[in-house]
Amino acid sequence: MKESSKSSERIILGVDPGTTIMGFGIIRVVGQKMSFVQLNELLLHKYPDPYTKLKLIFDRTVELIDTYHPDEMAIEAPFFGKNVQSMLKLGRAQGVAMAAALSRQVPITEYLPKKIKMAITGNGNASKEQVAKMLQSMLDLKELPKNLDSTDGLAAAVCHFFNGPSAAAGLEQAPKPSAVSIPKPKKGGYSGWDAFVTQNKDRIS
Amino acid sequence: MKESSKSSERIILGVDPGTTIMGFGIIRVVGQKMSFVQLNELLLHKYPDPYTKLKLIFDRTVELIDTYHPDEMAIEAPFFGKNVQSMLKLGRAQGVAMAAALSRQVPITEYLPKKIKMAITGNGNASKEQVAKMLQSMLDLKELPKNLDSTDGLAAAVCHFFNGPSAAAGLEQAPKPSAVSIPKPKKGGYSGWDAFVTQNKDRIS
Repeated sequence: MKESSKSSERIILGVDPGTTIMGFGIIRVVGQKMSFVQLNELLLHKYPDPYTKLKLIFDRTVELIDTYHPDEMAIEAPFFGKNVQSMLKLGRAQGVAMAAALSRQVPITEYLPKKIKMAITGNGNASKEQVAKMLQSMLDLKELPKNLDSTDGLAAAVCHFFNGPSAAAGLEQAPKPSAVSIPKPKKGGYSGWDAFVTQNKDRIS
Repeated sequence: MKESSKSSERIILGVDPGTTIMGFGIIRVVGQKMSFVQLNELLLHKYPDPYTKLKLIFDRTVELIDTYHPDEMAIEAPFFGKNVQSMLKLGRAQGVAMAAALSRQVPITEYLPKKIKMAITGNGNASKEQVAKMLQSMLDLKELPKNLDSTDGLAAAVCHFFNGPSAAAGLEQAPKPSAVSIPKPKKGGYSGWDAFVTQNKDRIS
């Protein structure tokens, strides 16, 4: 059951799977407005065993899906890395997070880190602090977590909001009966920041 | 429910996740004897969408677990590869297969391809044909599949049989109540081939 029965509501789960920390963020979108629901982190560096890490990522992702019933999942997914072994480990972490979504019929969209930074700050090379501060302003967060890595999941969710719901494309499955009707992304595209400025003129100082 | 209630029986599921083909094999182990249960392949090259591939891997692995109730899963897991992007994709495929096992509390053990070849043929550089022929002989297979890649999952299962059940080690979870008691691996170790020769003198020509 969804938390709210408003037919125009969408819940977006954003995740940033890693092997030392995983960030989760959840936002609620009603029309063109988004609001903050949840920010969460999973600290994995304490668990030396790789399967324990993977199981924790799977279980936590499933738990969040079963609690908040997101309509879509956005995932921060770097496609380049230092070496093949770190990419294999990262791929596994991404894979279990994806499996959690796939097991619950939640469509997935991936975003490169640069794309997420661009969507939120207007600058693909923005610092972690800049992204976090902008999230704080956009979502009226009272405070930011100590470890800014844990905001990366929330950033992915917000990026997905700005980039329009193309999440279900390519997924070979019928849409969820409970899924809300999703407007098509604007033709010609827009940067997330431009869209935010247009829609939130009163919030930009 | 397990297919058989023999308390000394173990079912081993072996998988070789890839992005073009995934091989599955299931063996039954009673005491020091193994027997063939199932050989299966999942052809993935027909599905261009990466999420469809991952979902198929997850669903098929869960389906096999729910059908055959394996006590352990062995996975062929290369740790080196050509480039970071192919390793990321491979990591994702491995991740979803692992998530399927973790979601059903099935302990996982990984084996490098060389280790699997060594366990089955006594030669870490054996060809695919040599491995397949040896599997055919060991398990009394009437015929081999056209695509020998699909025997790699079965090879992982047989390798796990030879290498002793260390599968549960490191998994931060209680043993399954239904799990059979698992003998410790022999001290000092043995090569799979040596063990096979010792145990199956009558079958070596």
